[in-house]
Amino acid sequence: MTASGGQESDTGRIETFSDGVFAIAITLLIIEIGVPHVVGTESLSEKLVELWPSYLGYAISFLVIGTVWANHHNRFRLISRSDHILLFLNIVFLMCVAFIPFPTALLADYLSGTDEHRTTAVAVYSGTLAVTAVFFTLLWLYAANYRLIDRTVDPLLLRAMTRRYVFGMLLYILAFALAFLSPAASLALIVVLALIFVLPEPEGPRGARRTRRRSVRG
Amino acid sequence: MTASGGQESDTGRIETFSDGVFAIAITLLIIEIGVPHVVGTESLSEKLVELWPSYLGYAISFLVIGTVWANHHNRFRLISRSDHILLFLNIVFLMCVAFIPFPTALLADYLSGTDEHRTTAVAVYSGTLAVTAVFFTLLWLYAANYRLIDRTVDPLLLRAMTRRYVFGMLLYILAFALAFLSPAASLALIVVLALIFVLPEPEGPRGARRTRRRSVRG
Amino acid sequence: MTASGGQESDTGRIETFSDGVFAIAITLLIIEIGVPHVVGTESLSEKLVELWPSYLGYAISFLVIGTVWANHHNRFRLISRSDHILLFLNIVFLMCVAFIPFPTALLADYLSGTDEHRTTAVAVYSGTLAVTAVFFTLLWLYAANYRLIDRTVDPLLLRAMTRRYVFGMLLYILAFALAFLSPAASLALIVVLALIFVLPEPEGPRGARRTRRRSVRG
Amino acid sequence: MTASGGQESDTGRIETFSDGVFAIAITLLIIEIGVPHVVGTESLSEKLVELWPSYLGYAISFLVIGTVWANHHNRFRLISRSDHILLFLNIVFLMCVAFIPFPTALLADYLSGTDEHRTTAVAVYSGTLAVTAVFFTLLWLYAANYRLIDRTVDPLLLRAMTRRYVFGMLLYILAFALAFLSPAASLALIVVLALIFVLPEPEGPRGARRTRRRSVRG
Repeated sequence: MTASGGQESDTGRIETFSDGVFAIAITLLIIEIGVPHVVGTESLSEKLVELWPSYLGYAISFLVIGTVWANHHNRFRLISRSDHILLFLNIVFLMCVAFIPFPTALLADYLSGTDEHRTTAVAVYSGTLAVTAVFFTLLWLYAANYRLIDRTVDPLLLRAMTRRYVFGMLLYILAFALAFLSPAASLALIVVLALIFVLPEPEGPRGARRTRRRSVRG
Repeated sequence: MTASGGQESDTGRIETFSDGVFAIAITLLIIEIGVPHVVGTESLSEKLVELWPSYLGYAISFLVIGTVWANHHNRFRLISRSDHILLFLNIVFLMCVAFIPFPTALLADYLSGTDEHRTTAVAVYSGTLAVTAVFFTLLWLYAANYRLIDRTVDPLLLRAMTRRYVFGMLLYILAFALAFLSPAASLALIVVLALIFVLPEPEGPRGARRTRRRSVRG
Repeated sequence: MTASGGQESDTGRIETFSDGVFAIAITLLIIEIGVPHVVGTESLSEKLVELWPSYLGYAISFLVIGTVWANHHNRFRLISRSDHILLFLNIVFLMCVAFIPFPTALLADYLSGTDEHRTTAVAVYSGTLAVTAVFFTLLWLYAANYRLIDRTVDPLLLRAMTRRYVFGMLLYILAFALAFLSPAASLALIVVLALIFVLPEPEGPRGARRTRRRSVRG
Repeated sequence: MTASGGQESDTGRIETFSDGVFAIAITLLIIEIGVPHVVGTESLSEKLVELWPSYLGYAISFLVIGTVWANHHNRFRLISRSDHILLFLNIVFLMCVAFIPFPTALLADYLSGTDEHRTTAVAVYSGTLAVTAVFFTLLWLYAANYRLIDRTVDPLLLRAMTRRYVFGMLLYILAFALAFLSPAASLALIVVLALIFVLPEPEGPRGARRTRRRSVRG
């Protein structure tokens, strides 16, 4: 009992630390938007309108990090034990999340630039998200396969979640590939993915969860 | 019991994450104030005095974010359940809060500029606060109408709170409109609003709360 | 019971939020130190040595904020109730704490400058700390006089603490005055004050506390 | 009981504050990487590739701070009492941790520079980590020798940990010395050290811990 209790609080501290990194990374996004410099009778409002790629990048990244936070937090509520590999995978995953403000600033600066610049910026941006998704999926697969999950969780639920994350990861990789064909399509897919992952989980796991509860109650 | 317990801790994690974003956004305000560069025998104290719009913006935004934090935190103590819409509305609300350092820096740079620059800066600033107030009110209305509130809360208290937030939102929108007539009046209204919302809640809800307690005790 | 429990958790959330602001303000200090730009065969090590006022400012401010955090946290453990005035005083106090990175950067840039620049920078720095100390003392006096303190705390202990904070506040004001006579002496006093306030509390309160415990046990 | 309970929560607040500083320092690393400025038909992707020392510095520092956090957090779970010296040593230790973004930025700017610049940057970087390791070891030795450790911890485990930290500290000092002979070897050693310290603890303490548990159970 003592040992498992100690390990549970072990995931608790990983969760608290990760939540801190998410909250800071999401709030740091704003400092990448510089105040425009206008002099004399130049119009400030026009200059502010020209900054639209900065606002777009801010909004997309905020939504993406918020969604990733919600999913990371939900998954860690099912993980009841941790080990050094999980800790290491989580640090690498957070390294990707905390990196997001950089490609966001890149996007803001070059989205309205030349074709090469726009393609590069969107590719680096979607590539960062794809690598983040890869490490998130690795983290989840490791936890699921190495029995770090709370044993009372329904295996059907776990499998539905795994499908969800692997599928999401493939779509992020698709967004990266799309960047070279159509940067706009790549960004649109990223927004759709963030909106999907913030929405309720698919019926599969929900049903499974309900079944489990019924069996517990019955 | 398990299900409702799980959902309560669900609002707990939203609250902790939101508190983190508030604390970071409020503390980041200072890095938008750049140290003045003076050379040779130029007076440093004069240059520091010229930075007064930066200090003013810092103080107003600190007060505003502090007040918004206090109100957000108080409201989430009444919300006992969460769902994906609430989570999404809260992320969009936080996106507005975390955006505040940008219009604050704009205000600092252009408050002592030409008329067009001052009007634009104050309009963007008060507009950001108005949009923030709109999402805060939406969040509250959604929670109140979709039964996410703790059932033991007096309905009279809820109605008084709703009136308070809708009224506050309208005043923030008024501050935005005022920016085009008189930027100074717009800022003055914003300061007054922050001071009102940090003060005790109006007699209505207080009385209602007292009544509830008495009935619980009696 | 419910009411007092609610109020206790009320000070808990003020404490958590304040701790967040302290942790962020102290960690933001580093971003005010810019990496020196050297070109060609210029010596990087010499340029780094020339940055000594930045390191000094970083170390002093880190020590000061760390000490203020420890004292703020200790005092809030005695405060068991909160009201809107306390909340407001605490926001203004945090506004001072979060402001510290700015005068620290000023100090770093102008400590090795002309006499006027050095005097101004040290005066702004020590003045900020003096104002911070004034609001900390106001916060404490308000809590102590308006019965927001845990009733089991020995009145002798409270009086010893009040003496300690009023005395500390006067010494910070002295440091501000000293800045105009000798900037070096002003900074030296600030370092000494930080070291004193991180050291154990004076015998008075300790004795009082011990007495209380004995009487509780006996 | 009350007294020891109070002291335990005392280490709790040090831990929470320290965790906050770690989370912020690790996330701030990204803002030291500036977006490259390219104009006209210059290649953005080439410019991004040239930033490799920034990415390398980011990755190494993220790994190092993550590892230091995990070790600091683990050690504080064994420390059950605190005093003012421990508090002071911990503030100085955090001062070193929060300083890391500065030498990281230095590394990023000068790793691909002249020999003198590279050597200086790597020496300052590894020197900062060595000083951090010295204070971490001091903190641990102070806690271990002044009976601030939970009494139920096996003395053999404590001794194995002390050996581990003293040895690690000597290797960080070696990395600092190596910087003057081979900057690349110095960085390689730092990466290896971070990977070692994130891996499971050596057999010694593990065995000791298992023995203790068995004796508790038996």
